[in-house]
Amino acid sequence: MKVLIINCGSSSLKYQLIDSDSEEVLAKGLCERIGIEGGMLTHTPAGRDKIERAVEMPDHVRAVELVLESLTDKENGVIGSLDDIDAVGHRLVHGGESFSEATLIDDDVIKAIEACNDLAPLHNPANLIGINSCRKLMPNVPMVGVFDTAFHQTMPKKAYLYGIPYEYYEKYKIRRYGFHGTSHSYVSKRTAEILHKNYQNFKVIVCHLGNGASVSAVKNGQCVDTSMGLTPLEGLFMGTRSGDLDPAILEFICNKENISVSEMMTILNKKSGVLGLSKLSSDFRDLVQAKNEGNELAKTTLEAYAYRVAKYIGAYTAAMNGVDAIVFTAGIGENNSDVRQMVGDYLSYLGTGVDKNKNNVRGEETIISYDEARIPILIVPTNEELAIARETVRLVSK
Amino acid sequence: MKVLIINCGSSSLKYQLIDSDSEEVLAKGLCERIGIEGGMLTHTPAGRDKIERAVEMPDHVRAVELVLESLTDKENGVIGSLDDIDAVGHRLVHGGESFSEATLIDDDVIKAIEACNDLAPLHNPANLIGINSCRKLMPNVPMVGVFDTAFHQTMPKKAYLYGIPYEYYEKYKIRRYGFHGTSHSYVSKRTAEILHKNYQNFKVIVCHLGNGASVSAVKNGQCVDTSMGLTPLEGLFMGTRSGDLDPAILEFICNKENISVSEMMTILNKKSGVLGLSKLSSDFRDLVQAKNEGNELAKTTLEAYAYRVAKYIGAYTAAMNGVDAIVFTAGIGENNSDVRQMVGDYLSYLGTGVDKNKNNVRGEETIISYDEARIPILIVPTNEELAIARETVRLVSK
Repeated sequence: MKVLIINCGSSSLKYQLIDSDSEEVLAKGLCERIGIEGGMLTHTPAGRDKIERAVEMPDHVRAVELVLESLTDKENGVIGSLDDIDAVGHRLVHGGESFSEATLIDDDVIKAIEACNDLAPLHNPANLIGINSCRKLMPNVPMVGVFDTAFHQTMPKKAYLYGIPYEYYEKYKIRRYGFHGTSHSYVSKRTAEILHKNYQNFKVIVCHLGNGASVSAVKNGQCVDTSMGLTPLEGLFMGTRSGDLDPAILEFICNKENISVSEMMTILNKKSGVLGLSKLSSDFRDLVQAKNEGNELAKTTLEAYAYRVAKYIGAYTAAMNGVDAIVFTAGIGENNSDVRQMVGDYLSYLGTGVDKNKNNVRGEETIISYDEARIPILIVPTNEELAIARETVRLVSK
Repeated sequence: MKVLIINCGSSSLKYQLIDSDSEEVLAKGLCERIGIEGGMLTHTPAGRDKIERAVEMPDHVRAVELVLESLTDKENGVIGSLDDIDAVGHRLVHGGESFSEATLIDDDVIKAIEACNDLAPLHNPANLIGINSCRKLMPNVPMVGVFDTAFHQTMPKKAYLYGIPYEYYEKYKIRRYGFHGTSHSYVSKRTAEILHKNYQNFKVIVCHLGNGASVSAVKNGQCVDTSMGLTPLEGLFMGTRSGDLDPAILEFICNKENISVSEMMTILNKKSGVLGLSKLSSDFRDLVQAKNEGNELAKTTLEAYAYRVAKYIGAYTAAMNGVDAIVFTAGIGENNSDVRQMVGDYLSYLGTGVDKNKNNVRGEETIISYDEARIPILIVPTNEELAIARETVRLVSK
């Protein structure tokens, strides 16, 4: 089956065409500056060079048209006609409490996603535009929505309720949702496979450390806690996001700087995290280099980052009353051996730690804990598109 | 030595007179509604009945006068004259980065405390009024300030810096300070004594669970992390305070309810925590009773409360790479066996847990973990006034 994966933002659209039988990526690409002057389409057929093309995209329908043209193009295409696309899988950010798993998209589902717009005002409307554009151009192709929040819907109340008046949960559904669910699901399952464990009887902590970053506790195949909350702002330090804060800091800075809460939210989302603390960069390669060159603030930033990851690992070990495996994934988790080493150094009380030589790898499925470690520590590269393709095939084939 | 301990709020003043040799409380009491109509003075001489007296207190100087009159009163007093008071110890909330330990109060110290007013606008000015009132009435008595934040000043940068632009730390000193320091210090030391351990080579987690609540990690006699932050709002669920939140929740609720950040802060400080979540009470006795009567929300609230305590214990075990003892203190920690049991049930991965029979106690210095536990769990009643008296004597005798 050939599955088109769509990840649609407000002015961009990422795509992959995946052959679900071989699980190969046939082509992938990106539309940028949709609805803005200076549009750019990037298309990469598997095993061939990237093709960049400046082309105006006044709306998302035009962007999807261009994607479909690229895929069926005589010279650079990878399929003969649109009929070769068997299904479309959409990456969707927020399914609220309505979606605890992926779903076949129909009119009712679209209404239910719209009802969650409040919870993700930047992402959900853009995701819906992507769905509607695809439906317009491929009205007879089955489509599936895969939600970033769905995997975390198994969390118990004690983990998802905040210490605020319960009315806010009843009225506005304010609670912990968690994100990166597709990644946490994929990586936790894959970890059980690699270790030849029964996923239904297995406690694993997944550290998804990318530009956005979250940790999850997965017990017997179900997420029981995760570090992102109502929004993707909570939890770990991230590239530019603050993560956990004393909530009183918002009022304090608003008053001091004479700015609004919404201006403060922009600062916490775009100018904070390791970028804000280091005054240098949101890119961990820059931070490691600066640290090695003696930059004290870069060193402190990396220490604080790893410290917070370690504290979440400790917290989730208590949450599950033990842990059978700890796994790193996503850009930093897969590629930054310094961060993994620093985190591992906190864990000898659990009878585990990172082996320096084994840890000297990038983006490989591998065990990096020392040989006698009681709890294996792994790297498992995430693959959200493949996970979305699998979910899409599963639902379309039902 | 006879030491008067003063804990001064904006409209109230608590006091104890302590004989530092015997460490006995000679008398204690409370002035309420200072500066407000309907003032009330409560005075309890040791071993005798409480005396309540309706008396207007237009300002704190008058309140201190009344305290001194009560202490020297022919009938209900406990000392012959004011000359018998050898020193005054003031409980102070916020010492910022200026005070890493208790200090003899002089004009320079008062200026330095004033400089921290920004960080504790409700508490520090009231504390200063208490100091100035006492100095006016007892100009020749040495006075000591004991700060709630001081014990936590040993935290490393990785623990006290938030993931926000570093300028905010440089400009406004926004960082984690922590509170209840006098209690965390007293209880952690006492725990080492009880267990016959060397405090300088000992890892202990102190759960101070009162109406306000915080956890601290104390390693080799120094605080290395604590759950309260810039203000006492962060961390655990508390009686009426929210504790940790996705910072984005503030903006979300402000927009939904059309309220200001400062109104939101009042809700997070006064109407949240277990009161807000349970819709019932901030008193844990009410919650436990309601839970036993089948109230589902009370049950969830208690579960969420204990869960968060357990997660902090797990996090701080990772922070210190192990733990030698876990201790409960303050109102709920000392008296609520249900909460202690629920927290203990998460810890069998550490080779420890709460013994049901041993746990059936209130407010006693005792070990409540089961006999074979690898890590002892204790109750150690806190005594902040005694700790302040000891610090006061230490500094006055120098």
